[in-house]
Amino acid sequence: MSQTAPEQLVKEIPPKAADLSAWYTAVCLKAELVSYAPVRGCVVLRPHGFGMWELLQRELDARFKATGHENAYFPLLIPESLFTREAEHVEGFTPEVAWVTEGGSEKLAERLAIRPTSEAMFGVMYAKWIESHRDLPVLINQWANVLRWEKATRPFLRTMEFLWQEGHTAHASADEARAETERMLGVYEDFARNVAALPVYAGVKSASERFPGALETYSIEALMPDGRALQSATSHDLGQNFSRAYDITFTDADGQLKHVCTTSWGMSWRMIGGLIMVHGDDRGLRLPPKLAPVQVIVIPIGTRSDVVEAAGRLVADLQGAGMRARIDQRDRTPGWKFSEWEMRGIPLRLEIGPRDLEAQSATVVRRDRAKGEAGAKTSLPLSRASGAIPALLEEIQQSLYDEAQRALHEHTFAVSGRDEFFARCADRSGMIDIAWCARPECEAHVKAQTGATSRVLRSLQAQGAACPACGEPATVNAYFAQSY
Amino acid sequence: MSQTAPEQLVKEIPPKAADLSAWYTAVCLKAELVSYAPVRGCVVLRPHGFGMWELLQRELDARFKATGHENAYFPLLIPESLFTREAEHVEGFTPEVAWVTEGGSEKLAERLAIRPTSEAMFGVMYAKWIESHRDLPVLINQWANVLRWEKATRPFLRTMEFLWQEGHTAHASADEARAETERMLGVYEDFARNVAALPVYAGVKSASERFPGALETYSIEALMPDGRALQSATSHDLGQNFSRAYDITFTDADGQLKHVCTTSWGMSWRMIGGLIMVHGDDRGLRLPPKLAPVQVIVIPIGTRSDVVEAAGRLVADLQGAGMRARIDQRDRTPGWKFSEWEMRGIPLRLEIGPRDLEAQSATVVRRDRAKGEAGAKTSLPLSRASGAIPALLEEIQQSLYDEAQRALHEHTFAVSGRDEFFARCADRSGMIDIAWCARPECEAHVKAQTGATSRVLRSLQAQGAACPACGEPATVNAYFAQSY
Repeated sequence: MSQTAPEQLVKEIPPKAADLSAWYTAVCLKAELVSYAPVRGCVVLRPHGFGMWELLQRELDARFKATGHENAYFPLLIPESLFTREAEHVEGFTPEVAWVTEGGSEKLAERLAIRPTSEAMFGVMYAKWIESHRDLPVLINQWANVLRWEKATRPFLRTMEFLWQEGHTAHASADEARAETERMLGVYEDFARNVAALPVYAGVKSASERFPGALETYSIEALMPDGRALQSATSHDLGQNFSRAYDITFTDADGQLKHVCTTSWGMSWRMIGGLIMVHGDDRGLRLPPKLAPVQVIVIPIGTRSDVVEAAGRLVADLQGAGMRARIDQRDRTPGWKFSEWEMRGIPLRLEIGPRDLEAQSATVVRRDRAKGEAGAKTSLPLSRASGAIPALLEEIQQSLYDEAQRALHEHTFAVSGRDEFFARCADRSGMIDIAWCARPECEAHVKAQTGATSRVLRSLQAQGAACPACGEPATVNAYFAQSY
Repeated sequence: MSQTAPEQLVKEIPPKAADLSAWYTAVCLKAELVSYAPVRGCVVLRPHGFGMWELLQRELDARFKATGHENAYFPLLIPESLFTREAEHVEGFTPEVAWVTEGGSEKLAERLAIRPTSEAMFGVMYAKWIESHRDLPVLINQWANVLRWEKATRPFLRTMEFLWQEGHTAHASADEARAETERMLGVYEDFARNVAALPVYAGVKSASERFPGALETYSIEALMPDGRALQSATSHDLGQNFSRAYDITFTDADGQLKHVCTTSWGMSWRMIGGLIMVHGDDRGLRLPPKLAPVQVIVIPIGTRSDVVEAAGRLVADLQGAGMRARIDQRDRTPGWKFSEWEMRGIPLRLEIGPRDLEAQSATVVRRDRAKGEAGAKTSLPLSRASGAIPALLEEIQQSLYDEAQRALHEHTFAVSGRDEFFARCADRSGMIDIAWCARPECEAHVKAQTGATSRVLRSLQAQGAACPACGEPATVNAYFAQSY
């Protein structure tokens, strides 16, 4: 049996610490999450990557439904005249729009935008549907593809077309809309931490970083290993900006005609990019078990029929106990298979060879532990496997989170001096926590000097502090970082 | 309590028998399945309609996975030069394509087609991915939106953008590809009968009715109440037509470089249109329980707190037993609610009023039975509800199928005479079963004279028969009908 195969496979990706960007692209391709498509800026989400997306959808969708939302589907194409009704929104998105100008064999009288986001289409329909306070709130989400014109391509992080969900809600009062915006931020934070094993800072964004047309934008921000922040989901309080632009009114209980207050919120496949970068290592992906399309890969060693049968029974047991388990019986060496499933980030590998079978046990290898690390490789009696493995998967889920949480903690710096602030922003130390003046001019200056911007704000932690960037009185605390 | 509300609601839809087309559109809108969008040819799939689509997806997707398929996601936009590689395919689809010609602020050098179907994109990627016989078969499906330029709009049946799934597979041999094509036809037939409660004729299509670029196309065909057939899903054996156009080759076990054989197969939201037309009645939709987003609606009569609490407990019981149950506590009259949920086609309505509560029972109303019909309205002890209702839902599922099956049987006519054949084709009697010559010229003549075409073929039932359309020797049996 060749011992060179696994070496060769691993050699194909560069070390993560040396060049995160090269490592990232190589892992996305070698783990067969994506392939580049023959259209600039587009990728194909392959079965392993789509399997992660399906699990993300399932987990997030259950949370949306538990908070009273329903799904629907709105059209892809938006006539230009409708798209351009909300002024800030148009200014923000027009440079990114792809336009349909011909249909069948005719030139169109009006260009149609492929949706970069659907506030406009939801606005037009909500104006038709909503009449009375009894129709409110309207709580609708859609899972959809959207398109934003892009020259660069980075799988999951920057693509012209991407998959996401967009929630759009309408409420009778500003307070209700604000509560909805915050509730959905909470849903995203819970998902990031407890499903993607991704620790995040959650909070409101500065004025400069707001969604075009929003009163307030909230986001969750994860820290990548190169010290950049990744905005992983956003929730917008749109106030009456869109209801005025699209004339969405209702007759309130008091008989008055009023404009509704709306919100929108979204998470895209970008979240998958974040968890790849945070959890992966030099052998490839390390998937949190809750988002792993295959949680347990069972590999029979050799082709002895009793070994293969025992492996098959084990897989059936695990599947029967609700785990996503699969057997790999392909005509390849065990070393090649080990390496491939490590690259794909499968949390647990169970090997059964003749010696294991004699001992009525399986060799268990954890993907979250380094080779040779304590607990990385153990033996488990076959009779106890389906009972013991769920707890092991929970442990892996938690250990990936803990590791990422330590990294976030170690790379969060509370800074009060001007020089240290600019230096840490410029060299991407991580999340730079300062007491800040919150002035757009100050943020513009920091961005011009260092490339960093505020990621999320929170209430001022120490009264009377001065902003380290400009010396003006601080009004909030903010995490600054360069971002994707 | 007003008795006029339900009357008013029902009055808004015309009788089904008088004008199927007007009835159909009215039901789709009044039941809030869809709304017309402000783009020609497009509809919004509203939560009640999307709820049906989600259930369709869940049922069909489970069948795809059980037959070894995985999901993926391929790009929306296809460069014109790639789209046009398979000659027949291009000729068939080009008149229906929407073209993107501008992106951001630039004019594009090459037009991008919004996918009307994705054989081209899958072809290009399969050519990259497949190298060896060990990579085969490739069995991938995607759930996606597609666009075909349309002037008319009929919800579900004829829209510019629609939702569907498209499976694309690659195989080492022609036999395997043919077996896959037939397997997926079987999956569709099973879904139609056992989930949508829609009896269908399944089989191969004539040469004139084939998918552009296919060797053979198979379909399932349902009969609508106006005597037209609805092609409800198709499965195509593409042979090597696409693998030659897109150069998808593999090295076989014998060391030879060969072209793969491919298939594609799809079902769209058109299936929902079919089941609306077949099952609905003058009061609105009648949903098969397996595709009903709400299976049981519980309506407390009056606002007495013990009645409302009992209704709430009943809903919790039903949900606990795995049913999709909901309570309607809106500030509306019972009559209004009855009418609305009947319009929406909810299979079972449970009413609890003070008298029901005293008797510790609920009034059960079946949507599949006409008012006043035996068994339409019964009483059920509350303690037995969650135990008894699953069987009742099964019974409704079966009764809708049986009714539709009787209608199909009654409107299938075995015909051997020329005059009767042409008359039945022209007046839309239903499915006209003939021993047929299978010549394209004959089919073209029948179509020109009557508007009918062959829907599916099967083996010749009586040797030596002559084709009633043209008098030539028959080679197959065929169902003819006008179609949607």
